[in-house]
Amino acid sequence: MTTTPRTRLSPEQRREQLLDLGVRLLAHRSLDELSIDLLAEEAGISRGLLYHYFGSKQAFHEAVVRHAADDLIAQTTPPTDGEPLERLLTSVRAYVDYVVANHEGYVSLVKAAAGGNESLRAIYEEARAALNSRIFREDAVADSGEGEIVPDTPATRLVVRGWSAMTEELVLAWIDDPGGVTRDQLLAIIAGSLRAVVEAIPD
Amino acid sequence: MTTTPRTRLSPEQRREQLLDLGVRLLAHRSLDELSIDLLAEEAGISRGLLYHYFGSKQAFHEAVVRHAADDLIAQTTPPTDGEPLERLLTSVRAYVDYVVANHEGYVSLVKAAAGGNESLRAIYEEARAALNSRIFREDAVADSGEGEIVPDTPATRLVVRGWSAMTEELVLAWIDDPGGVTRDQLLAIIAGSLRAVVEAIPD
Repeated sequence: MTTTPRTRLSPEQRREQLLDLGVRLLAHRSLDELSIDLLAEEAGISRGLLYHYFGSKQAFHEAVVRHAADDLIAQTTPPTDGEPLERLLTSVRAYVDYVVANHEGYVSLVKAAAGGNESLRAIYEEARAALNSRIFREDAVADSGEGEIVPDTPATRLVVRGWSAMTEELVLAWIDDPGGVTRDQLLAIIAGSLRAVVEAIPD
Repeated sequence: MTTTPRTRLSPEQRREQLLDLGVRLLAHRSLDELSIDLLAEEAGISRGLLYHYFGSKQAFHEAVVRHAADDLIAQTTPPTDGEPLERLLTSVRAYVDYVVANHEGYVSLVKAAAGGNESLRAIYEEARAALNSRIFREDAVADSGEGEIVPDTPATRLVVRGWSAMTEELVLAWIDDPGGVTRDQLLAIIAGSLRAVVEAIPD
């Protein structure tokens, strides 16, 4: 263990590096298991320095979760052109793969957010809203000229929220017990059901 | 306030009566706000007697939540005959009305269950499983001869779990902000989307 970084990084770069490490550690751990001690050990730096960067365990958790949410949003960005259903499938595939790869951390975030940790809940809700609002992105439409995934109305906004909760439940339930459903079938169910649910809105 | 009940009830009947009152109090309160003190005041009996009936605040909360879950399951029982979609609509209508009428208590239960209160989580999961398994009830089919709502396969079991999470999110989001969607439209979306989602399962 050493307190000397190999290369000279700016404090901001160093903080980013520590957050990347925190997100990697969170993939296979719950938030409760992600301590400043563990990060200090894995990063080979002192606890004191970590407190310097993050202030407190709660602030450290918030920073890691925000970083993880940014990663999730970046990794699941749909392509700007292509057939709407194809664009949706690409995004859903990345989401499923993300949740599979980061299962422990993801589940612990859902629990913390639902269970009343208000800061984590706010980050979770923001990420959810960002993921949902993409379904209505106009720029993709403008670029491709191939139509929006779902028309933007108050009713479809509501339905997309429901579909998003279904997607999360489906992925977590499928990881627990696939019941013979393959990943490709799961993706087809999730992507296919969005349009189906939107079509269930009465005129 | 009096410690004398008006009519002579068996201890079991008295306990049931207290649980009914607890469920009514929970409708417009969170679990945190439902104290033994409040129940004692509303029931006009001593705190000591309540501890005699329930043992502890946690045990009291569990008993009230279980009672509320039993009410929910009873009130949303689909009729045994009729067209499958009509049976489903009747059940969904009762579910929506229940959540609207018991909003505070319902939301606090979802939070407690998701946030890691293991006993409440178990009751919540049992109730969810009971609600979901109805979709596959065979007796209704045998009675009516009019076909099952959804065929029973591992894939449809998975999908119904997702649909159920979507239903809960839709109702809670709709209560927060209906966005111009009427109750009947909401019911049509929820009931209609079950079949649509099942049809999204690839062969």
